[in-house]
Amino acid sequence: MTIRVAINGYGTIGKRVADAVAAQNDMEIVGVTKTRPSFGCDLAVRKGYPLFCTFDDADRIAAFAKSGYDCHGGISDLLSLCDVVVDCSPGKVGSANKDLYNMAGVKWIFQGGEKHEMTELSYTSCANHQQNLNAQGTRVVSCNTTGLARTLVPLLETCGDISVECTMIRRAADPGDSSKGPINAIKPVLKVPSHHGPDLMTVEPKIKINSLAVAVPTTIMHTHAITVTLPQGHGLDTEKVLALWRSRPRIIIMNGAETGITTTAEVMEFARDIGRTWGDLHEIFVWEDGVKVVDNTLYYFQAIHQESDVVPENVDAIRALMGSESDWLASVEKTDNAISQAQA
Amino acid sequence: MTIRVAINGYGTIGKRVADAVAAQNDMEIVGVTKTRPSFGCDLAVRKGYPLFCTFDDADRIAAFAKSGYDCHGGISDLLSLCDVVVDCSPGKVGSANKDLYNMAGVKWIFQGGEKHEMTELSYTSCANHQQNLNAQGTRVVSCNTTGLARTLVPLLETCGDISVECTMIRRAADPGDSSKGPINAIKPVLKVPSHHGPDLMTVEPKIKINSLAVAVPTTIMHTHAITVTLPQGHGLDTEKVLALWRSRPRIIIMNGAETGITTTAEVMEFARDIGRTWGDLHEIFVWEDGVKVVDNTLYYFQAIHQESDVVPENVDAIRALMGSESDWLASVEKTDNAISQAQA
Amino acid sequence: MTIRVAINGYGTIGKRVADAVAAQNDMEIVGVTKTRPSFGCDLAVRKGYPLFCTFDDADRIAAFAKSGYDCHGGISDLLSLCDVVVDCSPGKVGSANKDLYNMAGVKWIFQGGEKHEMTELSYTSCANHQQNLNAQGTRVVSCNTTGLARTLVPLLETCGDISVECTMIRRAADPGDSSKGPINAIKPVLKVPSHHGPDLMTVEPKIKINSLAVAVPTTIMHTHAITVTLPQGHGLDTEKVLALWRSRPRIIIMNGAETGITTTAEVMEFARDIGRTWGDLHEIFVWEDGVKVVDNTLYYFQAIHQESDVVPENVDAIRALMGSESDWLASVEKTDNAISQAQA
Amino acid sequence: MTIRVAINGYGTIGKRVADAVAAQNDMEIVGVTKTRPSFGCDLAVRKGYPLFCTFDDADRIAAFAKSGYDCHGGISDLLSLCDVVVDCSPGKVGSANKDLYNMAGVKWIFQGGEKHEMTELSYTSCANHQQNLNAQGTRVVSCNTTGLARTLVPLLETCGDISVECTMIRRAADPGDSSKGPINAIKPVLKVPSHHGPDLMTVEPKIKINSLAVAVPTTIMHTHAITVTLPQGHGLDTEKVLALWRSRPRIIIMNGAETGITTTAEVMEFARDIGRTWGDLHEIFVWEDGVKVVDNTLYYFQAIHQESDVVPENVDAIRALMGSESDWLASVEKTDNAISQAQA
Repeated sequence: MTIRVAINGYGTIGKRVADAVAAQNDMEIVGVTKTRPSFGCDLAVRKGYPLFCTFDDADRIAAFAKSGYDCHGGISDLLSLCDVVVDCSPGKVGSANKDLYNMAGVKWIFQGGEKHEMTELSYTSCANHQQNLNAQGTRVVSCNTTGLARTLVPLLETCGDISVECTMIRRAADPGDSSKGPINAIKPVLKVPSHHGPDLMTVEPKIKINSLAVAVPTTIMHTHAITVTLPQGHGLDTEKVLALWRSRPRIIIMNGAETGITTTAEVMEFARDIGRTWGDLHEIFVWEDGVKVVDNTLYYFQAIHQESDVVPENVDAIRALMGSESDWLASVEKTDNAISQAQA
Repeated sequence: MTIRVAINGYGTIGKRVADAVAAQNDMEIVGVTKTRPSFGCDLAVRKGYPLFCTFDDADRIAAFAKSGYDCHGGISDLLSLCDVVVDCSPGKVGSANKDLYNMAGVKWIFQGGEKHEMTELSYTSCANHQQNLNAQGTRVVSCNTTGLARTLVPLLETCGDISVECTMIRRAADPGDSSKGPINAIKPVLKVPSHHGPDLMTVEPKIKINSLAVAVPTTIMHTHAITVTLPQGHGLDTEKVLALWRSRPRIIIMNGAETGITTTAEVMEFARDIGRTWGDLHEIFVWEDGVKVVDNTLYYFQAIHQESDVVPENVDAIRALMGSESDWLASVEKTDNAISQAQA
Repeated sequence: MTIRVAINGYGTIGKRVADAVAAQNDMEIVGVTKTRPSFGCDLAVRKGYPLFCTFDDADRIAAFAKSGYDCHGGISDLLSLCDVVVDCSPGKVGSANKDLYNMAGVKWIFQGGEKHEMTELSYTSCANHQQNLNAQGTRVVSCNTTGLARTLVPLLETCGDISVECTMIRRAADPGDSSKGPINAIKPVLKVPSHHGPDLMTVEPKIKINSLAVAVPTTIMHTHAITVTLPQGHGLDTEKVLALWRSRPRIIIMNGAETGITTTAEVMEFARDIGRTWGDLHEIFVWEDGVKVVDNTLYYFQAIHQESDVVPENVDAIRALMGSESDWLASVEKTDNAISQAQA
Repeated sequence: MTIRVAINGYGTIGKRVADAVAAQNDMEIVGVTKTRPSFGCDLAVRKGYPLFCTFDDADRIAAFAKSGYDCHGGISDLLSLCDVVVDCSPGKVGSANKDLYNMAGVKWIFQGGEKHEMTELSYTSCANHQQNLNAQGTRVVSCNTTGLARTLVPLLETCGDISVECTMIRRAADPGDSSKGPINAIKPVLKVPSHHGPDLMTVEPKIKINSLAVAVPTTIMHTHAITVTLPQGHGLDTEKVLALWRSRPRIIIMNGAETGITTTAEVMEFARDIGRTWGDLHEIFVWEDGVKVVDNTLYYFQAIHQESDVVPENVDAIRALMGSESDWLASVEKTDNAISQAQA
């Protein structure tokens, strides 16, 4: 049985999740929504995804035809066709949507822009796939939280207890967004500690973590500067940490000095070189020569592609909600192989 | 007969030309060169292009094996296998290479970083394909000159006589280059008028053109601000200019107000959306609502993807030198269709 | 008699004009306005400028006291104390203000963000000081137009007839503005030709000029790339053009190669070095080695400090309206000497 | 007796230290050096500082006269005139200079670009003025270390024991430097933990500190994201920490939400507004609403003006070496008042 998936909100994240879902052989895209006829509809048409209106309003639906787009109905029409809806609408509008999805009797997935309090359940493949099995709905945590989970959950599993301080150096705008600044400044997130790190505890409460965050004038990646306090007798050293991460999915480890990949610019160039659609990097990038265990402290940097690292997590989350794959590693392998083959 | 092509210098341009050549059914890549074993070799291996050393030095060649790369020999070995070599080494080193190529009896193509005086012949598909037929070697003009030719040659052909003032607002560094600045400044090219515009006369001497240039803190595209003086009785208006350009290959015309593509950021996002490898845009991008004919003056802006607009031109240039396709439009169609299918 | 000057809108331009006025021995600041109590009031207090509310609303006025600022009344109170008001409020709100000023019987000066149609008279020191003598009100043209006038008016006076194409490469945000983008893009002004160049004709109608404009990710200066067509028999060469400009006020000419001032970054560093308040540069900066006359064409680049080049022009405009100095050069000398001494 | 001060290396730091020294009534500048006649000499001439050559070579000295600069001799001539030399030459060239200074029998001060191992003594006003009294030479620590000392030393004095994790988000180039990138990337310092934080222990060994560092595409300030672990029973809360810092010199504390100073752009604008030469900010800037004590952890952000925070420290260091003021607070007050009056 093929899982029928709807995408509510065909934007930066939605367009990527749609492709990732469409690449799977156990899923299909039954439709994507746009709020109004706009240039973004062209991409859906090109990809062959049926177009729906975000609203059930007849006038709004009719507007699509006037602009030459074939609109298949409103959100309710779309919900009647799907098993699960992935809500990729801009953050903070989710609560009303949740009611709509529940009334339609479909499972739902929100993104990290929504609060855990609203969904009451959150998801990251490597942290709590089991906990999400057969749930009615969940929230795939943000790109930053997803990235933290990828490298910290294995450490927790190995050591039993870790406490983490993280500074998040965030890109201030996405590459296709020309309106936001700053052009020449650093902007601290003055609410300290920031919400970014502790959000990890919604998927793995045993990790003690605090964070500080700043935004900087770049468009391409977030970078995390992380300090982990390991428990006494942790038994890890730099090489063991690297080996641990190398054994886990969705982490790329490269040596900056050897490869010349010394900034996020070269990381993104690497993603372009290996032929990823949109130049995306679903994996977290860790600089091998920036990892070091000193006594009970582990230092490392990781770079996060803010547009895409959550994309495969959404696919895994669909399988969790539908109960179709209970082993997270099996789901991850299925997801990533299918995406990889679609891009070859 | 398949044309055997070598790429000397597998970097920003070389890696793209290799893929474009490999996509053609009348050509094949027989090898690419690197100066030394380095991370860039991995991409060649991944693509299946045989690796050679830029030099004939035995020690240098042996160094590849030590780093785990299978090196098939030096540049001379590669030249013995090919019909034509595309030289994509960094600018200003070409003169010695030309002698090498001539001695090896292979045809050669240099890039726009070299001077016309060295190659004595230059190439752009839409301007002088005929002139390059069966020549021993040529120079594919720079990304900027190529872009100017795409929109100005059709105007010249229509009007018989145009004179052009162009200001080139250039990206100061490529996306994968983290070393170059400026971070917060505008840098005028103080040699005025600049060499950029007049370089167009190497492929179409009948266009009178001068240019000024500045570099600005962006990585993704050059932008040209162009003023064309049309001859008396030119018979053109804004719509006719747009129609003319729409009838020509490798020009994309879009309306900024309607599509929201108002800066080079959204242009590049469009290229990512349509699935281009590396997010490249081989076409010149012209803003429809930035084109206007006022009396004898035509104003317009165009954006140039500096990493890639010359890539298909290199493929066409190969056919010109080999004499295998004398009609430039036929070659362009063949080139672009093959690239398009390889990316689908 | 000391001219009593009010500043309506104590922001980026207002704070600078206030200081420039206060430095003159024939003028004084009788008050400056803010819309509400805010951090910007501190600067006025520090400088000793009486603070007024932009509105006549009693509640709004009272709000200042609650925040600990001594507010001397509303805009009408301020107008009753002054001979001339310099309106430095954000653009496009001026029309209602003009009525207010006329009713109060005070002379008024708007900034370049307002349209010439509204003020019916515009001003630049070097172009039309005489025309503004004893007028009721005027508009000091924008930073860009002011910069164009400085170098083009002398050429017109010398040659009798010039036609100009100018590309304006504009800073996208001011240094203290962290909200505006783009971070990594070039944004063309799609309305072509742009309004920037032709605005010069409001102060000197005999100059034929068109312009194109782009915004780029920098905060510190605009740069103009200019091509001037000189009349037959113009008699100028590069050296004569430089000599002409050197004989005029508010133009700095330096050689980029000799001084290392090759971008706007070093221009602004020069302004800091010579001790200018805010690091401002009231003068237009022309690169000596970027000026060249070729036949009938003059090419040059100039850099414009967008925050400050109009500041001394406002002082001169006050004298023009008040009829207190009919010779523009005499006013300029008075203005600049007073500012210079205040900063020593 | 007036202390006679020489500046060896009249560049970014040297020009600022010269002015700060010249502003003091117990010191005078006897000369500054440049390596060769260059545009930078003009500033020295304008300020009235005698010009010397960095070298004792007769040809090099003579070259100044040829370029129209009055050169008073070589470095040895300058050393014969001074009591103390402040070495502001680029980093890593200091060792040979130290020998020269010792042979000339003058006291010497190096900057933070040199290593503590070379000078064997380091200096920050608030940390170890006493330790530097009457020493032969010292090293004023870097802008980052100076900034850390300003806020951390008071905490250590209050709590007796602190341990610190700091992430340094560094500007990638100075405002007047147009050559360095990156334009659009984040560059982690892969040597972890970085040397930046621990350098603080050269002036205050009792502070336990580690740091990570990244460079980002901005020119105007560094920002520190700091987490301090306070000892059990520390007795501090957010308000007490703020009160402590308010009682110390060279720390500015402002509320981002109230003042609108939410990024380093507005911090620098504030420095311009208060009339500081070069728009400098000698003080460390702490966001009041970014400070928070949670249990035993203190979080805060501070911004560092990399071009200038060490400038007054050099003046204090001169007094320490000369033994002319043994109380650091008295020296700081003298230094800052004199600088402030010189700028009024």
